Amino acid sequence: MLKQLREQVLEANLEVVRRGLVLYTFGNVSGISRADNLVVIKPSGVPYERMTADDLVITDLDGVIVWGELRPSSDLDTHLHLYKSFPEIGAVVHTHSEHATAWAQARRPLPPLGTTHADYFYGPVPITRELTEDEIKNDYVRATGVAITDAFGNRDPMEVPAALVAGHGPFAWGRTPEDAVHNAVVLEAVARMAMYTFALQPNARGVSQALLDRHYFRKHGATATYGQVKK
Amino acid sequence: MLKQLREQVLEANLEVVRRGLVLYTFGNVSGISRADNLVVIKPSGVPYERMTADDLVITDLDGVIVWGELRPSSDLDTHLHLYKSFPEIGAVVHTHSEHATAWAQARRPLPPLGTTHADYFYGPVPITRELTEDEIKNDYVRATGVAITDAFGNRDPMEVPAALVAGHGPFAWGRTPEDAVHNAVVLEAVARMAMYTFALQPNARGVSQALLDRHYFRKHGATATYGQVKK
Amino acid sequence: MLKQLREQVLEANLEVVRRGLVLYTFGNVSGISRADNLVVIKPSGVPYERMTADDLVITDLDGVIVWGELRPSSDLDTHLHLYKSFPEIGAVVHTHSEHATAWAQARRPLPPLGTTHADYFYGPVPITRELTEDEIKNDYVRATGVAITDAFGNRDPMEVPAALVAGHGPFAWGRTPEDAVHNAVVLEAVARMAMYTFALQPNARGVSQALLDRHYFRKHGATATYGQVKK
Amino acid sequence: MLKQLREQVLEANLEVVRRGLVLYTFGNVSGISRADNLVVIKPSGVPYERMTADDLVITDLDGVIVWGELRPSSDLDTHLHLYKSFPEIGAVVHTHSEHATAWAQARRPLPPLGTTHADYFYGPVPITRELTEDEIKNDYVRATGVAITDAFGNRDPMEVPAALVAGHGPFAWGRTPEDAVHNAVVLEAVARMAMYTFALQPNARGVSQALLDRHYFRKHGATATYGQVKK
Repeated sequence: MLKQLREQVLEANLEVVRRGLVLYTFGNVSGISRADNLVVIKPSGVPYERMTADDLVITDLDGVIVWGELRPSSDLDTHLHLYKSFPEIGAVVHTHSEHATAWAQARRPLPPLGTTHADYFYGPVPITRELTEDEIKNDYVRATGVAITDAFGNRDPMEVPAALVAGHGPFAWGRTPEDAVHNAVVLEAVARMAMYTFALQPNARGVSQALLDRHYFRKHGATATYGQVKK
Repeated sequence: MLKQLREQVLEANLEVVRRGLVLYTFGNVSGISRADNLVVIKPSGVPYERMTADDLVITDLDGVIVWGELRPSSDLDTHLHLYKSFPEIGAVVHTHSEHATAWAQARRPLPPLGTTHADYFYGPVPITRELTEDEIKNDYVRATGVAITDAFGNRDPMEVPAALVAGHGPFAWGRTPEDAVHNAVVLEAVARMAMYTFALQPNARGVSQALLDRHYFRKHGATATYGQVKK
Repeated sequence: MLKQLREQVLEANLEVVRRGLVLYTFGNVSGISRADNLVVIKPSGVPYERMTADDLVITDLDGVIVWGELRPSSDLDTHLHLYKSFPEIGAVVHTHSEHATAWAQARRPLPPLGTTHADYFYGPVPITRELTEDEIKNDYVRATGVAITDAFGNRDPMEVPAALVAGHGPFAWGRTPEDAVHNAVVLEAVARMAMYTFALQPNARGVSQALLDRHYFRKHGATATYGQVKK
Repeated sequence: MLKQLREQVLEANLEVVRRGLVLYTFGNVSGISRADNLVVIKPSGVPYERMTADDLVITDLDGVIVWGELRPSSDLDTHLHLYKSFPEIGAVVHTHSEHATAWAQARRPLPPLGTTHADYFYGPVPITRELTEDEIKNDYVRATGVAITDAFGNRDPMEVPAALVAGHGPFAWGRTPEDAVHNAVVLEAVARMAMYTFALQPNARGVSQALLDRHYFRKHGATATYGQVKK
């Protein structure tokens, strides 16, 4: 079932490890088939070295397992909430990558300090509010997703394809598993450069709106000019 | 004698090097057979590249060598004190991993700033008191262990399986050598992320008790839900 | 056409990746044939793993493509402006290498804090002025080059073969593609050491003029004594 | 001539690169035959990849080349001054390793913040005075050595086998080329951990004299107990 998507999700899970975003099993990638309303996700706590596409789990949008023999990632309900709230996204990545996690632990949004950021994120990467004690006790994993969608309000999640969960770490997303991982990798690099920037300049400010527009729309939307024309 | 444990301890000693926690010979791992009251430990100052399971040393809990031809690690008496004081532990790891050592040199306990920490350590990782001049001169290695157990008081050493020795570096432990090394690796990652977090937010605070509970007990104890059910 | 230069430029583009200066496709190297007034540059957004010398693009100094089937790097106009303004240079490198980019994002020139810097850069590496909103909207890429040449004024670009573009990242140059990449690699190392230095000493000062002279002219100009005599 | 020493010096030069202390050709190792009063040193500016034992240069203590076809390292006169002033040393290493260089650029001595430091350096690693303009202009390389020996005064250079040259970088030494490189590697690790420590605790203090004694003399001198007994 959904063999191609399972292989893409497996490959994306392995790529976050190769890129140094994940220690042991501290991360998970999922992908969705919008045609089937089914989500493919990494199993919980299985070492990456021996994971195959047959170890992945398929659930519906309520989290009911429809295929697979293992338990799904313990973060499943966060992924499901994001898929239900953000209809354009096709994949979700969660890691504890170290610099993005430091911003999440510092409870600071990540401002757009340069063009590397602006090429991928059209404005600050938001930080979520604190969860209530009630949310933590009764509905923690889904509430993590709710805090992310709360942080976006009316902002377009495709324009800023990531969020920092306070006291936890980053989530990123994209149209495909490969695209979502790419965004997670760039987020970590941007978070690292932003940490260095504030070390050198405690009053660092974001780039101007004009520069943000110039870089973001060079790579995104109808007027994009970066890369080769798709044939 | 104790061949299986010697192989586990050798593998754990090599793993701390592969994980980047140890420069030259600055580290040591031991394991205990509780059935035999015998401890297997790395020899002192032998390069890892040529260490075999036959180079390990076996001592009783008083440090009397009962097997092996080499001198045991110079930190043996710290390990022995921990085995005698903490009956649940089966292995001890000592490294000078750079970020955990920086916290130890800064003489600061490591607070639980996020869920990565909470998944492994149920509260701050304690820093030891200063040793007295008398302890340093007369019984230094055992006194290092005493300072660790003093820092725990009535806290459960299985809930926070590590300590920072002031002006020295980290010790970690676990049920098995593999488990103890895993904790030492996570400690270093958590120490690094905590350093980054304080760089971004000098007033960073630990996570709430509710979040600490939620994450710690997801992975530990009778109600744990993380990973696959053991068959 | 210009096969040897294309191979040098390809090799230089691969070298910046191997040296860790470039994530994904965030960088570009070009070289110029002064005899032909033709520039060889990396194509836009093509993964390095499958780039060959036949994927490079050749343009004249007005940016008209005279050879090649792909779109040139989106930074082409910055390169062209530098070639027109700095007649001694034979190659240009642009990266988002993380520490040089942090200085660029902090909008600080990079002072000569030690002899590593002085061996390559005869004084501070300049930071560019902010671009105007008009420049960003109408002529952004060329204006980036103008900001660099403005930052040099009458300074000799061969004595400080690099600049930091505010809110963006570093450009470096040299007589050949290999030489320009060498300067970009040293710039990143010097930027990293300067960040560490200011962490240890917020009031760090540049080296004396005498030391700057001593080191710079040991490696450069008619009185250079470093290395082996070219036969 | 001195083939065995040339091979040791070659190996030591390659080891500093493998250990990540040296970028391009920014470092040099020499060794001395005290029986012959002859020094073997790396040639100037030759890439490490193609260096062989036949490329090394042999000079007397006045710097007169007695064997070899290449120019010696441009830092030769610093090495020679150290050999003449410190009769116990058998090898000298100079690098621009990044953290030790940051301390040198910050013009701060490196205090003994923990036992890693105390195991190798019996007290602070000194920082040299500024060179005078006259020294820089007329006798720069030898004067660098003089500044190092000035910084030691009556301290024993075998008890602290390294120095930080202000605005430049570290020199380390030892009884053999292998030993000197080992000290240079540990110096860099200790410098890195000390930088982290001050980030976490701006008022960090050195370890007590008792702890310094305990660790240093565990590894050095007649009462050393670390490692295996030499047979």
